[in-house]
Amino acid sequence: MFSQFFEPESVAIIGASKKPLKVGHELLKNIIDGNFPGKIYPINPAADEILGLKCYPSILDVKEPVDLAVVVVPAQAVPEAIKQCGEKGTKAVVVISAGFSEIGNKTLEEEVVRIARQYGVRIIGPNCTGIINTHRNLYATMESRAGRGDIAFVTQSGALGGAVLAWAIEKGIGLSKFASYGNACDVDESDLLNYLADDPQTKVITLYIEGVKNGRKFFEAAKNVTRKKPLIAIKGGLSKAGARSVASHTGSLAGNEAIYRTVFKQSGIIEADGIEEMFDMARALAYLEPMKGDKVAILTNSGGPAVLATDALERLGLKVPEPPEKIVRALDFLPPVCSRKNPIDLTAEGSPEAYVKAFRALFSEEYYDAGLIIDVPIAWDARGATEAAKLLTEAIREVGKPTVVCWMSGHLVRDAVAVFEENKIPNYETPKRAAKALWALYSFKRVTSP
Amino acid sequence: MFSQFFEPESVAIIGASKKPLKVGHELLKNIIDGNFPGKIYPINPAADEILGLKCYPSILDVKEPVDLAVVVVPAQAVPEAIKQCGEKGTKAVVVISAGFSEIGNKTLEEEVVRIARQYGVRIIGPNCTGIINTHRNLYATMESRAGRGDIAFVTQSGALGGAVLAWAIEKGIGLSKFASYGNACDVDESDLLNYLADDPQTKVITLYIEGVKNGRKFFEAAKNVTRKKPLIAIKGGLSKAGARSVASHTGSLAGNEAIYRTVFKQSGIIEADGIEEMFDMARALAYLEPMKGDKVAILTNSGGPAVLATDALERLGLKVPEPPEKIVRALDFLPPVCSRKNPIDLTAEGSPEAYVKAFRALFSEEYYDAGLIIDVPIAWDARGATEAAKLLTEAIREVGKPTVVCWMSGHLVRDAVAVFEENKIPNYETPKRAAKALWALYSFKRVTSP
Repeated sequence: MFSQFFEPESVAIIGASKKPLKVGHELLKNIIDGNFPGKIYPINPAADEILGLKCYPSILDVKEPVDLAVVVVPAQAVPEAIKQCGEKGTKAVVVISAGFSEIGNKTLEEEVVRIARQYGVRIIGPNCTGIINTHRNLYATMESRAGRGDIAFVTQSGALGGAVLAWAIEKGIGLSKFASYGNACDVDESDLLNYLADDPQTKVITLYIEGVKNGRKFFEAAKNVTRKKPLIAIKGGLSKAGARSVASHTGSLAGNEAIYRTVFKQSGIIEADGIEEMFDMARALAYLEPMKGDKVAILTNSGGPAVLATDALERLGLKVPEPPEKIVRALDFLPPVCSRKNPIDLTAEGSPEAYVKAFRALFSEEYYDAGLIIDVPIAWDARGATEAAKLLTEAIREVGKPTVVCWMSGHLVRDAVAVFEENKIPNYETPKRAAKALWALYSFKRVTSP
Repeated sequence: MFSQFFEPESVAIIGASKKPLKVGHELLKNIIDGNFPGKIYPINPAADEILGLKCYPSILDVKEPVDLAVVVVPAQAVPEAIKQCGEKGTKAVVVISAGFSEIGNKTLEEEVVRIARQYGVRIIGPNCTGIINTHRNLYATMESRAGRGDIAFVTQSGALGGAVLAWAIEKGIGLSKFASYGNACDVDESDLLNYLADDPQTKVITLYIEGVKNGRKFFEAAKNVTRKKPLIAIKGGLSKAGARSVASHTGSLAGNEAIYRTVFKQSGIIEADGIEEMFDMARALAYLEPMKGDKVAILTNSGGPAVLATDALERLGLKVPEPPEKIVRALDFLPPVCSRKNPIDLTAEGSPEAYVKAFRALFSEEYYDAGLIIDVPIAWDARGATEAAKLLTEAIREVGKPTVVCWMSGHLVRDAVAVFEENKIPNYETPKRAAKALWALYSFKRVTSP
């Protein structure tokens, strides 16, 4: 049934508006500008046409079937809108409208649920910011239209969702699906997790939750996901004051740090400390295979950043062991000035060819479980960094071991980073972030092994 | 004497080159392109002119006095270059050239030091990437020309220094001074710290060290700094494998985590976990007064990000207490839907004027020690976010309490962030990073109190 939410052939916007800056206008515009390939029906009794599309007085006036309805009318008008959706046979409804249980208006929300149940209508929301399926060009939200990718993002906080969507565009992070579920009067985080667990376009699921109403259901849904793909989550409100500030969304598990930690651990959820870290880990897990063991080989052209990577990896429980004899011999081609211990330091002289040769040597024997490659280009000529990225892309693919890269230096490495991104090799701005990404590849492996 | 390094009237580049991409060319070009206001003397016996400047066979052929010499000739030629600097009366020499103790060539390095001592010449390097004084437009380095600011950066790793300089440009982080000190054959990290402690253009010092040769001297220098201004440091090589990878830079304190932690704590150094965190904290400490207590008021227009900020602050040992009665009354103007507890949530309806009024109310009584303001703009119209930034800038200045901001949403808040940056109000991309910045303001206060 979730395919009607995320793969609709047609969508109606109940409460579409002619007036720019109104949610009912911007949301419709987003659907149009996002190039939704299906039919779009603006619904508003006071307009004949909006943004070049024929407008209907009610969803019942649409002759063709409507798979998905997005509701943006005032709270008091929502029950009637749901009823009409039910009569029309539209089973998937996203309610953007606010003014329900989140401000104490529980009765109205219960009425909405009652009507929906009567007609077999499923609701995402109310008080949410909508849903996205980038692979269907469906942007049923007034938030920023993030680009296409492999990572799904589910969020209890609409505002955080909006901030992350805009930020994802800036950072070049692609999403598969997005869902803000608001008050979760019907469809909740667990339903969305179960749907995304089987979504072929989603390789990793990221989640922001504050409280969960049905802890058992969440636990089962999380386990269902992690049997199939990684689930990374941020739990907001773990601190005392944090719990107080989520009090309006009270759920049975809310605020108890010990319980959440246990649930996360037992269901294989990877906990993220913040948004950046969540997507750093998600990119690695979306692009790469999990690590089979804990041994990381570091290859670099500069000592300091490699030291930081080593420290970060060891702090996270991973190992940076010296290479065994056979691999040392394979590294024999390196000039004497280069360190053959791990990290392997090519020094500033390290050519793109040396990078590739050393990388292949490091994985010429079955020993290391993952690679972390660092490059700091010379400031006045970053062509070597781009060339190294191109050559390494091929070598990394052939070697087949999970490998993250850390091409440092802001704008100097922009071309190189684009090469990596195109080839789904995750690049990180700092050694510490690259290390945490490898930790995620290690952790996911560990928790799902029998 | 350090004024000759950082405030020279004239600079000679010994080993200047006509050939683009050579260090001796790019470094000279950097000095010229950086608009150094003093005299520039390229030194090379094989050229008459380089990049439009008259070239001299040796520094002894320059008639006018030369304050600073930057040496980029091959290692074997460095002793003679130092000797000529000594004869010329040039007391400040930066030796970029590598090939000394870092590759086991200790004898050559000792010879360089012996000659320098003989003439009273001081050396930064060898095997370093140079120095910068943005306030004198002095870019005596081949690395990226970071912009002007209040933060000094001293680094043992030249490559890390280069990466950070390029990254600082990208992030809009301004520096006062930069020094890569390489092998520290003469001038070491402690000498630089003592100089920067009294540098009026430096408000905060950031430091990357791997090993320290003279622990006592470092301890005293650090204390000398923290009596006057904040010192934030990353110690590379704290892990076992990390220590192994810095083995080539062996120093007496290297690798012993317990000793470093004690030295950091007792001398008031704030330890940073990575580069981003170091500069996040440095910006707060450069722009704002330290916190006098641990109580933070959070003002937001969106719940989720405020919850994340609250959690992060409490995890760091700061408090997010509910407002006392008088402040609650001052917040009485807020619509009922807004939370008057801490975080104060204006909800998505929060206008720029409401932000200012609520901010002033929060600080109308002497209670909170710092502010953290969050704004997630609506995706289709970020004008409110910019307007709020403008109005709040004034209110923050008038209230006078240390306040950091977190205008979220990538490109949507670019104008607002520019307003804040111009007014030295530090903005952070995520609530977690804003919280850590406040922690730095709290920590610095605590460690320097008697």
